[in-house]
Amino acid sequence: MTIGDELLYGQVVDTNSAFMGQELGKIGLRVRQISSVSDRADEIVAALDLARQRAQVVLITGGLGPTKDDLTKHVLAHYFGTELMMHEPTLHHVEEIFRRYDRPMLDVNRQQALVPANCTVLHNAVGTAPGMWFSDQGTVFVSMPGVPFEMKRLMTDHVLPRLQTQFDLAPIEHVVVMTTGLGESFLAAKIADWEDALPPNIKLAYLPSFGAVRLRLTGTADGLPDLRGRMLALLPVLRERIGEYIFAEEETALEAAIGKLLASRNLTIGTAESCTGGLVAHRLTGVPGSSAYFRGSIVAYHNDIKQQELGVKAETLARFGAVSEATVREMAEGARQRLGVDVAVATSGIAGPGGATDTKKVGTVCLAYADATQTISKEYVLDRGRALNVDYAAQSLLTMLHQQLAQKRG
Amino acid sequence: MTIGDELLYGQVVDTNSAFMGQELGKIGLRVRQISSVSDRADEIVAALDLARQRAQVVLITGGLGPTKDDLTKHVLAHYFGTELMMHEPTLHHVEEIFRRYDRPMLDVNRQQALVPANCTVLHNAVGTAPGMWFSDQGTVFVSMPGVPFEMKRLMTDHVLPRLQTQFDLAPIEHVVVMTTGLGESFLAAKIADWEDALPPNIKLAYLPSFGAVRLRLTGTADGLPDLRGRMLALLPVLRERIGEYIFAEEETALEAAIGKLLASRNLTIGTAESCTGGLVAHRLTGVPGSSAYFRGSIVAYHNDIKQQELGVKAETLARFGAVSEATVREMAEGARQRLGVDVAVATSGIAGPGGATDTKKVGTVCLAYADATQTISKEYVLDRGRALNVDYAAQSLLTMLHQQLAQKRG
Repeated sequence: MTIGDELLYGQVVDTNSAFMGQELGKIGLRVRQISSVSDRADEIVAALDLARQRAQVVLITGGLGPTKDDLTKHVLAHYFGTELMMHEPTLHHVEEIFRRYDRPMLDVNRQQALVPANCTVLHNAVGTAPGMWFSDQGTVFVSMPGVPFEMKRLMTDHVLPRLQTQFDLAPIEHVVVMTTGLGESFLAAKIADWEDALPPNIKLAYLPSFGAVRLRLTGTADGLPDLRGRMLALLPVLRERIGEYIFAEEETALEAAIGKLLASRNLTIGTAESCTGGLVAHRLTGVPGSSAYFRGSIVAYHNDIKQQELGVKAETLARFGAVSEATVREMAEGARQRLGVDVAVATSGIAGPGGATDTKKVGTVCLAYADATQTISKEYVLDRGRALNVDYAAQSLLTMLHQQLAQKRG
Repeated sequence: MTIGDELLYGQVVDTNSAFMGQELGKIGLRVRQISSVSDRADEIVAALDLARQRAQVVLITGGLGPTKDDLTKHVLAHYFGTELMMHEPTLHHVEEIFRRYDRPMLDVNRQQALVPANCTVLHNAVGTAPGMWFSDQGTVFVSMPGVPFEMKRLMTDHVLPRLQTQFDLAPIEHVVVMTTGLGESFLAAKIADWEDALPPNIKLAYLPSFGAVRLRLTGTADGLPDLRGRMLALLPVLRERIGEYIFAEEETALEAAIGKLLASRNLTIGTAESCTGGLVAHRLTGVPGSSAYFRGSIVAYHNDIKQQELGVKAETLARFGAVSEATVREMAEGARQRLGVDVAVATSGIAGPGGATDTKKVGTVCLAYADATQTISKEYVLDRGRALNVDYAAQSLLTMLHQQLAQKRG
């Protein structure tokens, strides 16, 4: 249950529920429902009443900030028939945080240490609002701050270990196969008979996002041993049918799979980006340890930069245009040389909404890959609006890069 | 109401609800609750029953895909006491899509044109699953695909105009003031008396995200004229108190506000990025029309690249280290020259989890800004994990950039 008018008005996207769902699944708790409700006391109470009918555990985030629209703590105190009291260890912790950052402590900050008298306080190591654990007539309620990194820390430090201790449920097993480069329905057609033959306690779901599709097998305990082993034994058929699109058999990002291949083959990489504007570099460097193989990038938005920094020929630009396979190949090759890397990838495209020419539509994207032995390129046209065009170009380029690296024998 | 086990398992973040909340607010419909439920028919039905008690309009996304775990359509047909039938215009549309992309059409794709017999079909211009509008005992139910860009198109093309026609509600007015560079509680302290004096029909909310805080005034109709004008008349006090942190008085991204300043002052910009790995360039180029002022970037992850491409001196790196104000100043100045831009910004930091040295902790970030007349720099330490460290560094740099540009008189 996430609390806050900002969620209902759509001014904040609820990412907390997804994190909690993932973590609860790992310890064998199934999320029955996610609800986002307003900051109004009556609506919070109505949602608490419904949630306790539905579930044994109700996790609540939000509404614990220091400002006037943050009501959760007051509502919970009233709901559980108690009052707010000052929690001294929390007060010391809040004071310590303000001392550390050398900031003046305001009265609203002191009030962060007020908690309902009948809760168990969960120490928030990275923020001022503590977690609060209530046991009420057989239902556990836990209130956490809405700030994602504080909620995550409270989940990891306190909530998940306590739930594991308190409940003894048959675990749910997940096996995830990550694919990229083929749409959901085409994947489904290639594995329809395999899917039909799955045992009744194992379900398959297709989870598409940005040109990638996660295949998720969910197994529920059936009384027989080694559920996970039996699920893994289903994978060889998948590999045979759709192996060229699989980049990992665990929950991992495409850029992390690419990083593993680069590291294992001892290759360095760089990018030359026009339409993606640095997104490919940002994704590659999002992987911890990427500095071992990622050297740098040239974001060449202006044609001058393409020529000066990447050595794209004026003639190529004049003859084929900036958005062309010829240009993007020279960008990739130029990046290899300038950045001194083994592998370089490049993008050029018309992200839109402006920029279309007589011969090139918005959504036209050219991609290239270059290594010591070859340069390959492709062009496609697909317009879904500027932001998605850029996201999709980056995903397509990383897909191309992964396929090339996977083919290279280390 | 969003449907899908993937939401409950946390494998997909529900971004649809936020979009719908924003758009509904604009036409004066208040979202009462957001619910995410599983793909199980009984849970979908239970959620429909509850939703109709709570609201006059129930918008549903998800579960309309071509695969076996997509049940929504079947459940809705049953719930509204009817059967699925083939909708010929939709079938033609699906066939047309497959012809256009020259892809083989599968039987599951044909089934996308099956709809409950008593719904009004809403044409999905950008996908194969149509929207479905039901009126049932005074409640409107609308089912849309879960794919965000398809849902958005259906909302814009059909759902919002139809809702506007059908309902006649007092509009909610929102006035949003965007700030960056000061935390929520410090902003709150600076404007506490102003907030206390707000009329009862105008509420203030603080919406923090990544170092920025949106201040949202929400006004509900009070029978007096010109609600919006009276809300805007509240802003001069805000400007006086916290003007230096305000970058826009409308819902806009910091990078868009920066783009406006650059364009109006006729300045070009480039970036030199180490720890942010291209994210600052990606954000700046996310603004439509940014090619008018953004020329390019050097992502200099490896020290060799900092020297070769940005002219950072070996001596500086040896004496102060790559993560130092001295280095980042040279990066910004080097980028100005190499990219031929008026303004350049630079980052260097230890994003973590590895990379700490004897003298520099994980979370150490150095930022610089350089233009024709000055170079300024700063250093801070704040560790919230790799991804957030990078996000926060980019936000801090853009904040610094905005403040400098705002001070420059055009």
